[in-house]
Amino acid sequence: MTSTIDVYRGTLIESRHHVSIAVMRADGTMAGWSGDPELTAFWRSCAKPFQATPMIVDGAADALGFGPDALALACASHNGEEPHVALARRMLAASGATDDDLVCGPHASLNENVAKAMAARGEQPTRAHNNCSGKHAGMVGYARHAQWGSTGYALPGHPLQQRLLDEVARWCALPVTSVPHATDGCGVPCFSLPLSAMALAWARLAAAAAGDRVKDVPRESQQAVVRLVEAMTLHPFLVAGTARLDTDLIEASQGRILAKVGAEGVYCAAIPSERLGIALKVEDGANRCLGPALLGLLDVLVPSLVPPLESHRRCDIFNTLGNVVGRIEPRMILDRAASK
Amino acid sequence: MTSTIDVYRGTLIESRHHVSIAVMRADGTMAGWSGDPELTAFWRSCAKPFQATPMIVDGAADALGFGPDALALACASHNGEEPHVALARRMLAASGATDDDLVCGPHASLNENVAKAMAARGEQPTRAHNNCSGKHAGMVGYARHAQWGSTGYALPGHPLQQRLLDEVARWCALPVTSVPHATDGCGVPCFSLPLSAMALAWARLAAAAAGDRVKDVPRESQQAVVRLVEAMTLHPFLVAGTARLDTDLIEASQGRILAKVGAEGVYCAAIPSERLGIALKVEDGANRCLGPALLGLLDVLVPSLVPPLESHRRCDIFNTLGNVVGRIEPRMILDRAASK
Repeated sequence: MTSTIDVYRGTLIESRHHVSIAVMRADGTMAGWSGDPELTAFWRSCAKPFQATPMIVDGAADALGFGPDALALACASHNGEEPHVALARRMLAASGATDDDLVCGPHASLNENVAKAMAARGEQPTRAHNNCSGKHAGMVGYARHAQWGSTGYALPGHPLQQRLLDEVARWCALPVTSVPHATDGCGVPCFSLPLSAMALAWARLAAAAAGDRVKDVPRESQQAVVRLVEAMTLHPFLVAGTARLDTDLIEASQGRILAKVGAEGVYCAAIPSERLGIALKVEDGANRCLGPALLGLLDVLVPSLVPPLESHRRCDIFNTLGNVVGRIEPRMILDRAASK
Repeated sequence: MTSTIDVYRGTLIESRHHVSIAVMRADGTMAGWSGDPELTAFWRSCAKPFQATPMIVDGAADALGFGPDALALACASHNGEEPHVALARRMLAASGATDDDLVCGPHASLNENVAKAMAARGEQPTRAHNNCSGKHAGMVGYARHAQWGSTGYALPGHPLQQRLLDEVARWCALPVTSVPHATDGCGVPCFSLPLSAMALAWARLAAAAAGDRVKDVPRESQQAVVRLVEAMTLHPFLVAGTARLDTDLIEASQGRILAKVGAEGVYCAAIPSERLGIALKVEDGANRCLGPALLGLLDVLVPSLVPPLESHRRCDIFNTLGNVVGRIEPRMILDRAASK
């Protein structure tokens, strides 16, 4: 069965997005699916917690004095609001680096109102405003701490990126050679994976956060992931920002659901109490239906845990006069395996 | 068979758009199709020539002194560049109207560079900048000429909109009661139709432009459509604007292909020499693949007539550093009926 996000104009469907879904348990079994749970997609920013793990395991985060705020920002796709940018710069300063050492390019805020407010202040985005600047600041510090040097830190052959690929592959239970990469929007490698592998990594993160021992993942990696989950739960604003679903979902669910958006229509989430991990892909890559898709899926999967979050759930379509002329509605259908 | 637009990151497909297509002959037979040629979608701005026909037939255009430039703008989804805005205001002035009589709301230019240039000049878009302002200026003038008054001209019950619905239904060979409507982005009714009906109207327009007599369409309507086609061919810039495919295709093909874009992934085109009409819908409504979709389809359908237009055909994907990290590629498959 396939799930769709239907875009209505008046009472009629004008456009339709198809969504594939994998819901995995931490033991590697599939709990639910829709469309093609083995669809290959790029993990994009949903990989960030697993890319941040090695800098904790290898001692860089502690040596650089990265507290929970810095760890949250390392996992973030943030809005480039003042607290995000200031923290990214403090993280860079910890290893004597500056904006100039970042490989990621400047772009307008992911939140339209924030972008407009910056423009109204006459403020140009810098590299530190890039939504991935926390990840990059962590990478720069880690590369310097490990004595690899931060020059070329974004290249696939740099020891830092090799180390991150190892870690990502391990959480996904895949051999490194089964994880092809391309260049992400911020310039570092991003990983091509089946949705089931993405969901497994997030299920293992969920299990680790719930205190379980995760099979085939070293204890140090597991402890590092728990620190990242705690950091994101403590600092939801730093994970995304004003009016962003990732932030609002962590806050409203009090950390019972941890979600991370990625570009081109990917979304991953962990539900620690259920030891479940989710990966969904809007197949055409549209961002406009990510909120309805994730909340629609959570409504079906774990209805008792989902906060209302009406501003993310109700997506009206306006015309140029500001009148509501349509809406975006999820039609999520989840096939389920028998519970173990 | 289905046609897709594939979005690559590196060498791997990251996202995929599905496209449905109908290619019709003016006699009502289907010449080719892909996906579901009976898919229902909103015609949006691809309806504009048929919405502009009645103001010619009923004498309003001549009474108001609308030359070929005004007729082209009445069919346009323009960029709100200075010549578009100035002409829309001249069209309004012809019936003593101003920007304030327009129902359409202001929005930034459809062309990103044009929007940035306006912002850099500190210029705020007005209602006359709306991409549909030529259509609206024509409606205001027509409603006043017909003594209906222009108050409420955008409402479905206004005599103007009833007259336009009649005309649209006739060109599509559908009863009026089979054409549901909703509110378009600019505030007027837009029409829900099967792709085959959209393509038939454009095939009839193609046949009329080629000098054929179109069955079941009054001679006056046919003559009016020919005047609109001639106007668009004479003033391609007014139909869209700088770096826009509709403009560039009319210019480069010297009017042998006449295409009109609509919102939410619809595109229609006429090929007069072949008496063919095309309607395609990117099912998810994405605009990013409209150029590759239309040119990819024309490459398959009428290869000898398609200009290179590399800037519209080659859609690279850049990261925040300005590096090419992917591309958008059409995979158009057309099933064909035996030619008559």
